[in-house]
Amino acid sequence: MVGQKQKVAIIGSGNWGSAIAKIAGYNAARHKDIFDPIVNMYVYEEVIDGKKLTDIINRDHVNTKYLPHARLPENVVAVPKAEDAACGATLLVFVLPHQVRRFVVDPQFIQNVCKSLKNAISPNAHAISMIKGVEVSQHDISIYADVIQQALNIPCAALSGANIANEVASGLFSETTVGYRPHQRHLAEYYVKLFDTPKFRVGMIEDVAGVSLCGALKNIIAIGAGLVDGLGWGGNAKAAIMRIGLMEMRRFSLEFFENVRPETFTETSAGVADLITTCYGGRNRKCAEAFVKTRKPFHVLEAELLNGQKLQGTETAKDVYEFLQARGKVDEYPLLRTIYEICFEGLDPAQLTERL
Amino acid sequence: MVGQKQKVAIIGSGNWGSAIAKIAGYNAARHKDIFDPIVNMYVYEEVIDGKKLTDIINRDHVNTKYLPHARLPENVVAVPKAEDAACGATLLVFVLPHQVRRFVVDPQFIQNVCKSLKNAISPNAHAISMIKGVEVSQHDISIYADVIQQALNIPCAALSGANIANEVASGLFSETTVGYRPHQRHLAEYYVKLFDTPKFRVGMIEDVAGVSLCGALKNIIAIGAGLVDGLGWGGNAKAAIMRIGLMEMRRFSLEFFENVRPETFTETSAGVADLITTCYGGRNRKCAEAFVKTRKPFHVLEAELLNGQKLQGTETAKDVYEFLQARGKVDEYPLLRTIYEICFEGLDPAQLTERL
Repeated sequence: MVGQKQKVAIIGSGNWGSAIAKIAGYNAARHKDIFDPIVNMYVYEEVIDGKKLTDIINRDHVNTKYLPHARLPENVVAVPKAEDAACGATLLVFVLPHQVRRFVVDPQFIQNVCKSLKNAISPNAHAISMIKGVEVSQHDISIYADVIQQALNIPCAALSGANIANEVASGLFSETTVGYRPHQRHLAEYYVKLFDTPKFRVGMIEDVAGVSLCGALKNIIAIGAGLVDGLGWGGNAKAAIMRIGLMEMRRFSLEFFENVRPETFTETSAGVADLITTCYGGRNRKCAEAFVKTRKPFHVLEAELLNGQKLQGTETAKDVYEFLQARGKVDEYPLLRTIYEICFEGLDPAQLTERL
Repeated sequence: MVGQKQKVAIIGSGNWGSAIAKIAGYNAARHKDIFDPIVNMYVYEEVIDGKKLTDIINRDHVNTKYLPHARLPENVVAVPKAEDAACGATLLVFVLPHQVRRFVVDPQFIQNVCKSLKNAISPNAHAISMIKGVEVSQHDISIYADVIQQALNIPCAALSGANIANEVASGLFSETTVGYRPHQRHLAEYYVKLFDTPKFRVGMIEDVAGVSLCGALKNIIAIGAGLVDGLGWGGNAKAAIMRIGLMEMRRFSLEFFENVRPETFTETSAGVADLITTCYGGRNRKCAEAFVKTRKPFHVLEAELLNGQKLQGTETAKDVYEFLQARGKVDEYPLLRTIYEICFEGLDPAQLTERL
């Protein structure tokens, strides 16, 4: 790690963005030989009790809206324009909520953010994406690390893991995984330096797509796990759905993406560990359980149970199903198919295991 | 599958033995071309309300003591002497509780049962072991499939999976894994025929030791998961302990046993799926949580919480630690070591992740 100091910009400041800013700020200050200690954080400006959120963060060092119980280091500076936050940045951390694209008119939300950054960042910048989900348009499926890489023409890695944001922010023990591209281990080492702490252990694997896809596809499997809970089928059936789901996640990723490593799914925090936390906690599991018990449709349960948050698992199930259908591969993914049909086509949840 | 009909004897009739007898009886009757439809089950004779347990089972077809809520098929016949149950048997199913060796004076309980069977069984008999745990004597560690194979001089496979007995007996969906020895896939196919049903899916892998060791070592990791629960560290930390535990289970098995396949741990029901059920349900997790919250020693919690059942995780943790110590390998298994030291040497549970 020689050369210029890394100038970090965090693009996003939701629950997870604020938690990761806490860690990045701590490490940037600790490793002054590697990082410029000032970490800019792009904060979408909102007014809270008559005050600007950026002003609250910069004065009180708390993101009162999205991470109210954690204190951010003072060297994390909230900036209300993305291009200002990224000015001169060499290391960009993308942690925008991917569901935003469902709220706004423009479906190319993330591409547009990238466009606004293009002239601001350092010419030798690089990025890491923590954005969950996949971009699907019928025949095509892309991970956000690729979307960012293409939009900015800079290398983009990915980070994912069993990382409930509030637990990470509270300093409880967690692991995570950085997926990097071939020949870019030297960049991954910056991400490890920026994020690794004794309570937040960062592993590395040469697999951007696998790490990204784990973070998206696990939400579909969590719907399956929640269906088992709703059916009252017990621990054996739930573990079986998780195991079969992990195998379908891996098969899907190996079939449709390049340079995917199978062990990303079975050995890393991004894979098996995140699947476990998501299938035992989290909103996808919860809504799927309620779906079986109440028979209300998912958009109703989402409104009733999630307090404004969106359900990623059902959306991703639909995106992935449509992609598989466009490719003529639906039959090869019986669990992904069955979960989709239960969610959207009226298939009886009790049929969950019939095709497996 | 040509040749003589298989004559099945089930050696053991506890909770899991009775659940598996229900399935074996159903399949033996269904596949009359392969199996003699009468399935003998060795039942350790007990007197329940003035009646012999074998008489109750043979008259009412319910094991009122160990599996009271399930009906056994009428072709399952309870036999009070092991050698009578095994008379002429070609396919032996060993499902004795391994903890028995801790109750009786003779530590060689399973060897002695085998000795009593030696002259009863068919000369071309073969066996499958569902006995959890490992036999440890300082420098040596053995799986029960090997103990049985040596004692009877017949091939012995293993079966393990995410299989809570009461759920299996209730007909809830489960998967399991048969581990077979090199060149004995033809025998494994008999076990699949004997156990596979639409609600109990049997997979196969050429790995007797891996399948057996998963069933033993997962209980140690479940102690770790229960410690996390007791500490209130949340879902990220628990998933991390499970992931690290799975990796140490695999490393241990590959280091000390022959013909182990790594995917047994990460891909099968015996591996990752059983680890999940055991770390979320089960008595090891429960007692370890109570250990942190009450600081009572494990033998006290066992007596208070388990209603006469024994805690396998702490015993196995001790056996494995002593074995690792005898081999000078303690440092290479930081999680197994730390769990042992917390259970038996007064290490503070809050130190759980310090060495990882």
